[in-house]
Amino acid sequence: MSKFDTYFLMKPAEVAEYVKEKLDIFDNGAALECKEIGDGNINYIFKVWDKNSDKSVIVKQAGPTARISEDFVLSTDRTRIEAEILQMEYDLAPGLVPVVYKYDDVMNTCSMEDLSDHTIMRTALLKHETFPLFADHISTFMVNTLLLTTDVVLEHKQKKAMVKSFINPELCEITEDLVYTEPFNDYNGRNLVFPPNLEWVTKELYNDPDLLLEVGKLKFEFLTNAQALLHGDLHTGSIFITQESTKVIDPEFAFFGPMGYDIGNVIANLIFAWANGDAEIKDLGEREAYCSWVEKTIVEVIDLFNEKFSVAWDQHVTEILAKQPGFKEWYLGTVLRDTAGVTGLELSRRTVGLAQVKDLTTIADEKARLRAERICLTAAKKFIKNRETYQTGSDFLQTLKDAVTAFPRD
Amino acid sequence: MSKFDTYFLMKPAEVAEYVKEKLDIFDNGAALECKEIGDGNINYIFKVWDKNSDKSVIVKQAGPTARISEDFVLSTDRTRIEAEILQMEYDLAPGLVPVVYKYDDVMNTCSMEDLSDHTIMRTALLKHETFPLFADHISTFMVNTLLLTTDVVLEHKQKKAMVKSFINPELCEITEDLVYTEPFNDYNGRNLVFPPNLEWVTKELYNDPDLLLEVGKLKFEFLTNAQALLHGDLHTGSIFITQESTKVIDPEFAFFGPMGYDIGNVIANLIFAWANGDAEIKDLGEREAYCSWVEKTIVEVIDLFNEKFSVAWDQHVTEILAKQPGFKEWYLGTVLRDTAGVTGLELSRRTVGLAQVKDLTTIADEKARLRAERICLTAAKKFIKNRETYQTGSDFLQTLKDAVTAFPRD
Repeated sequence: MSKFDTYFLMKPAEVAEYVKEKLDIFDNGAALECKEIGDGNINYIFKVWDKNSDKSVIVKQAGPTARISEDFVLSTDRTRIEAEILQMEYDLAPGLVPVVYKYDDVMNTCSMEDLSDHTIMRTALLKHETFPLFADHISTFMVNTLLLTTDVVLEHKQKKAMVKSFINPELCEITEDLVYTEPFNDYNGRNLVFPPNLEWVTKELYNDPDLLLEVGKLKFEFLTNAQALLHGDLHTGSIFITQESTKVIDPEFAFFGPMGYDIGNVIANLIFAWANGDAEIKDLGEREAYCSWVEKTIVEVIDLFNEKFSVAWDQHVTEILAKQPGFKEWYLGTVLRDTAGVTGLELSRRTVGLAQVKDLTTIADEKARLRAERICLTAAKKFIKNRETYQTGSDFLQTLKDAVTAFPRD
Repeated sequence: MSKFDTYFLMKPAEVAEYVKEKLDIFDNGAALECKEIGDGNINYIFKVWDKNSDKSVIVKQAGPTARISEDFVLSTDRTRIEAEILQMEYDLAPGLVPVVYKYDDVMNTCSMEDLSDHTIMRTALLKHETFPLFADHISTFMVNTLLLTTDVVLEHKQKKAMVKSFINPELCEITEDLVYTEPFNDYNGRNLVFPPNLEWVTKELYNDPDLLLEVGKLKFEFLTNAQALLHGDLHTGSIFITQESTKVIDPEFAFFGPMGYDIGNVIANLIFAWANGDAEIKDLGEREAYCSWVEKTIVEVIDLFNEKFSVAWDQHVTEILAKQPGFKEWYLGTVLRDTAGVTGLELSRRTVGLAQVKDLTTIADEKARLRAERICLTAAKKFIKNRETYQTGSDFLQTLKDAVTAFPRD
């Protein structure tokens, strides 16, 4: 019998005790300390470390309600989904996600590798740091976790069992509302439009029927296309990074959806990083260096994805009809189309929707922020409406460049 | 305690006893008789009736293996799927499916309305009977069961729960192999090509790379597009019919897939009925009358579907982005595209694949059968390759007519 045989929400001292009893990580003589380190909205995150060695572990525990408010009752199934997905992603893309030591369905915890030596990528990008290996790492992560979980590769009955296991109604609903609906009609009155941009946003987003029609098509793609096991929230806040290492975290939005959703999120959040650098870096040389790196990274993420996708397809394809000449090219074309569409959705929703990005909101100068937002939204519309035309990294970059040209710096 | 608290495979006398104990259909003084009436491959089907009244019931029991061979171990979950789907379809399209009296998850039985006064539609069509209300009935069935189970209408979390509940890997695999793969490459060596047609089929189906590419695209649509709750096997052998009544049965292939799959199956099997009438009816006037009725029915099934779909959409749409002007028309266009594609797949697989239709195989004259098969396969290829172009019933009929023109009667 153990006190951890029945669920309760742990305090730090109890987490240390829990780790000692349940995990095989620390020596018998370890002097464990524990601190709650997370300030997220949903889960409780603890770091446990041994003062006598360099060993440490992260314990994430799900409460029956959200951390920020007891009003939000959430299914604790999200911890199972997160732990299983991390383990699966680790198998598919070793080294690009944290190691999971243990998932405990009684205590609703996931114990995993401590990444305290890494930084959240968005935080680092806001300091205009660059990460030369990021495009290589993230393109490998995406090709491996996405292509290898499609019907191109998986035995179809096995894939259907996985689809069933990862149906994720509550978290998909958040995406359906915040990404695929509200930014374009402020349906729930929750949008946060930067005040001087309100008239422009109303005209360009809310009153463009052609845009709404295309967003609707993309929404149904998200609702119905069980293509690949997505991360589901692959922005720069879900990535831990150093100069040498990239680790994707927080897959609680995972489900089987269109793979362009993940890729588009990466591209859009790189564009936000570009917009921040362009607005906030005063030194011309520094600005040029940082923005060029972001541009190069946008191009490389797409081009490396295309390249590795093609190689991995040839290596792993099992579905006989997917081996038909021309099929791979057609399939990749649909992925890039969806990627462009989602790039536009993410650019829109993080600019005017409920969950905004610091890349834009921290731009101090009002005029500069106005310009940055308009660049992002102008590119967004083009990505959504012209999504059939994107094939290469430079196609994606060109849309950013065209939008920048439309809003010259004062 | 009852002997029916533990599963066993029943004999007819036990089925009568079971019905008396478990169902509230018969009076206390009923004199029940029971006979096994099914000769299907998979399940055991019994009819129980009261000699003292006109009451009767059908009891379908699933064994742990297929009825025809103990080698095929099948999940008994198919009985739950069938019973739940029939009940759901009855709610959506009252009167167009049999009433389910009871689903019993211990005995793996589904007890339902006895339709002995109806005939299997394929059997009746082989006698060249006509059914003036069929197009009206089946178009209502399809609009109600399909459109009302999409994300256009259903709350998205509820729909996801349904998708999860009806994931159907074993039976989908049968379709993926027999409909979407083997007809076009004889991959498993199971095709049954009418010998004088072998060379022609090899050239026209197996050696047409453009066709295989399009079939591959359709296969991935079937594998990934969780659009609506399909019947999944909606051919004329799954329909009980009289002059006044149409009842759709046998939904064990049900799952969430592209709705064109059901509609295309109906159209293709009407084309087979046409081909049989055209080849087998010797009297010119009778032939003309029967084939004209089939042609009119093909046109009406599509046109009534379109019409009722549009009305039902306006009545039931809940998804806000689906209300955007132009969205309904775009969505229906994708449904008709898929319908044309599946019409072509079903025409192909029932002509050359493992599970053939009597409409073709019973054509006695070899030349006439050869011609009928070539008409069906020529139309099939056009339906698949040109599937983007179909909008109205007459578009569908024209493809049959063009194929007929290409193979003049001697």
